[in-house]
Formats: sequence, structure tokens, C-alpha cells
Amino acid sequence: MARSLGPICKAFQRIGSLSSIQSQLSPPSTRIPFRTSSRGMLQGPSSAFFSRPRDFSLPNSSWGPEMMRLYEQYNSQCEEEMEGGEKREGPWQRLPSYNRFLKYATGGVYLSRMIHKKARLFTRNNRDQGATFEYVLFFNSEEDKCVGIFQAGHLLEGPPGHVHGGAIATMIDTVIGTHATIACGPVLTANLNINYRRPVPLGNTVLLESSLDKKEGKKVFVTCKMTSGDGSKLHTDSTALFVSIKVSQLLMGS
Amino acid sequence: MARSLGPICKAFQRIGSLSSIQSQLSPPSTRIPFRTSSRGMLQGPSSAFFSRPRDFSLPNSSWGPEMMRLYEQYNSQCEEEMEGGEKREGPWQRLPSYNRFLKYATGGVYLSRMIHKKARLFTRNNRDQGATFEYVLFFNSEEDKCVGIFQAGHLLEGPPGHVHGGAIATMIDTVIGTHATIACGPVLTANLNINYRRPVPLGNTVLLESSLDKKEGKKVFVTCKMTSGDGSKLHTDSTALFVSIKVSQLLMGS
Repeated sequence: MARSLGPICKAFQRIGSLSSIQSQLSPPSTRIPFRTSSRGMLQGPSSAFFSRPRDFSLPNSSWGPEMMRLYEQYNSQCEEEMEGGEKREGPWQRLPSYNRFLKYATGGVYLSRMIHKKARLFTRNNRDQGATFEYVLFFNSEEDKCVGIFQAGHLLEGPPGHVHGGAIATMIDTVIGTHATIACGPVLTANLNINYRRPVPLGNTVLLESSLDKKEGKKVFVTCKMTSGDGSKLHTDSTALFVSIKVSQLLMGS
Repeated sequence: MARSLGPICKAFQRIGSLSSIQSQLSPPSTRIPFRTSSRGMLQGPSSAFFSRPRDFSLPNSSWGPEMMRLYEQYNSQCEEEMEGGEKREGPWQRLPSYNRFLKYATGGVYLSRMIHKKARLFTRNNRDQGATFEYVLFFNSEEDKCVGIFQAGHLLEGPPGHVHGGAIATMIDTVIGTHATIACGPVLTANLNINYRRPVPLGNTVLLESSLDKKEGKKVFVTCKMTSGDGSKLHTDSTALFVSIKVSQLLMGS
């Protein structure tokens, strides 16, 4: 890792120090860091070379009625209409989603392309809409809660007709990892403990809700439950520990 | 689930009872159940309609030197040469791998196609060799150990340049789930607890080794550690609980 990243690190030295790149990756302190950052990603001297990335968190034709119902439920709370007809931000905010990890950070997309040009975010690596993970995340800063709405495609099979345990773990890691990142900046999963209560049939839509339990220094403890879209069936409950990192740690080898 | 499977269950009644199908899915009692079953899968009245499935556990051009070295290390122990030049089975056996869950069972591929024609095993759902999970599993019945050799492709990214925590969980679930299935027949993951010790760089080959801790009625406890290919770096250690099931439970809705 350290060896293979040598040329990349030299390239970083030409465009700026690792610490300055790391600071770009920390979430901004504004209430809605993601909206700001997703625009910022396209700014800079090289923006003309890249087309605007697709935001995968927006509805597409593969989304079923349950997925759309839950999307509308949360999306309608992202903006509130006031008495005079004016609009203001609501309690929830939709988090845009791209097919690279460093999706929200100014310059992040360039950094990610440099590390491995062909790399793609695991959950967004399939071009066929509806085939794997269709999902959208919302965040409520007042309640410090994150929800993920996932529709499980036919390429996620584990037990016959049902979603693979690893795909379920991936959904959970996505929601709680995002939540921990909002709380602490860049993090790595240190522990993930999942109780699988009820298998998820392929094609179903599930709702994941995460809560931040506590922060202790560099540690963040998060819990998450996954239910059916209507909340009537508990599929999994889980706990996780994340540790905040400097991205330079990853870049320099680990 | 129960509603949508109604027509399928009626179809099963025409071709045989659920209990008989379930019994087909139980692992045979021979020492090498998988080899026997993988041939059996092509037998039966409808075999002429299906081409022979690809065994994904065999080397392909995307496998790097470390992946090949580990493959040869275990594969060379699948057969032993005796004094007279004759060959006999060795302590390890390679487990074939297809892109449907019911890959080893006689008739299983037909059942799986009926449940969801387009469904594919999560870990084998990408046609581009080397892009996602390249892996092979070996089992040692004398020591009751299972190993998985995984090469992580560029479409598994989580943290920049590294494998997604969910993809790592998927690798672990694959190895320990297979091990538990060999021990008890069809199982579902009930708990998965992973300590992530060191991130896995994209493109690296890792070695997973699982051990069966104990069986208590329908419960199977398994542990697993993931190391770098040469064993010098510990990436994860994990424990898991599996519960044996009847496949009819899944088919009838859960």
C-alpha cells in the first residue's frame, strides 16, 4: 500500500500537502454540509474536464411504490412553507449520493480518481437501475438521526429469494457510517455487531434508522435498526463503533 | 412474501412437496458433498434446457500472483500421490462456486430460477472478471476448517482506495456461512460481530480462516479471522451465530 501510493503522494505534494487535503475532507460546519460540498466538488481548475456526477439518491424508474412513499415522506419534510408562502429548511435533509467515496468533499472526486481511477463505491457500482442497492439517506440534525431507505435488487441474493447477509451489513454500514461521518468527520468502522432477526425478501424496501449513542474522544458509538417499510417487522438491530481518522493515514498506508 | 410466492408454491406441489425439495437441499453425507452435488445439479428431465454453469472458483486472468500462490497452496493439497504413483484425496477440497445460492443441491438451480429468474448470488453478480469479488473456498473435513482466498476488485471501494466495510462483512459471511452449511445444512445468519483491525487496500488478496466453535441444537457458533495473504497482518476477527432452518420456512414467507 505504502509503496503503490508513492507516486500518488508525490503528486499530492505538487498540488498541496496531505494535511490540507485532509482538512478539505472534514465536513464543513454549516448545517447542511452535503449540499454545499456537492456543489463545491465541481469547482476548481479541473472542473471543465469532468461532467457533473449523477446524484443516485434521486428517484428513478426502478423505484417501487413503497420506496417512493418513504422517499416522499421524508423529502416533504426537507422544506417547510411558512405563513407568508415563503419556504424554509425543514427538519430533514436529503443527502446526495455519488459513486465515489469522497463524494461530498471539495476536491474529493479528483483525489479519489487519482487513488484508483476505476474504483467505484461498492453500493453504487452497478449501472442497471434497480439491480442492486437503490437507496436514499436523510439526516435530521435537531434529533441527530439518520434514516436510509433501501430497495433490495435481484442481484443481492443470499438465501433463496432473500437478501445476502453481507448486503444487509452493507446497508447498515452505509447508514451508520454516514451518520458517524456527519458527527466526527472521516471515520473507519472498528466494530459492527448485527443481530439478524428476520430475512429480507428480494425486491422489498426496508427502512434503516440510526441513532448516535455517545462520543468518547475519537470513538463514536452508533445503533441502527432495520424494519420493513411500514415499520411492522424488525429485520435487524445492530451496534457499531467508529473511530475518527485522518485521511492521510489511509493514503500513507495502514 | 407469502402472497407473492403463492403461484410458486403451487408449482412446487406439481413437481413435488416442499419437504422433499428441502431434503434435496440438505448436504449429502458423503465426504465431498459439493463435487457430487455440482454434477447432480445438471441431472434431471430439464437439464437439456440449461447450459453447464460456470464454476467461478477456478482461476481466471484477473487473478494476481498472491491469489494464484494461495490457490496453488491449497489446491495442491486436494490430491496426494501415493507410493505406487496412485492418487488419493488430500486433506483439503476445493468448493465449486456458482452464481446462484442453491448451487450445490440437486435441482437447486431450477428451484432458484423459479423463485426469481433474474436473481444472482450477491458475491457473483458481476460479469467483469476481477471487478468485485474474486474468491475460492477450500474445506478441510479432518480439521473442520474452512478457508477463503479473496482478491478485492476496484468496484468494492469504501474509504478511499480501500475495501468497503460491507464488502468485508460479505467476504466473512460467505466463508463462515459456507462452513456452517457444511456442518448443519441450510442455515441463516443470526449474529455477525466483526472487529475491523486494519483496512484492506483495493486490489489486495486476503485469507479468511474459519473454525467451528460449537453446535448447540440448531445453533452453530463460528469464528473467523481475515489476514493479509502472507498472514503477517490481521485485518479482522469475527464471531458468528448461525441457526439451521428448513428451506420451506423461507419459501413460505418469514
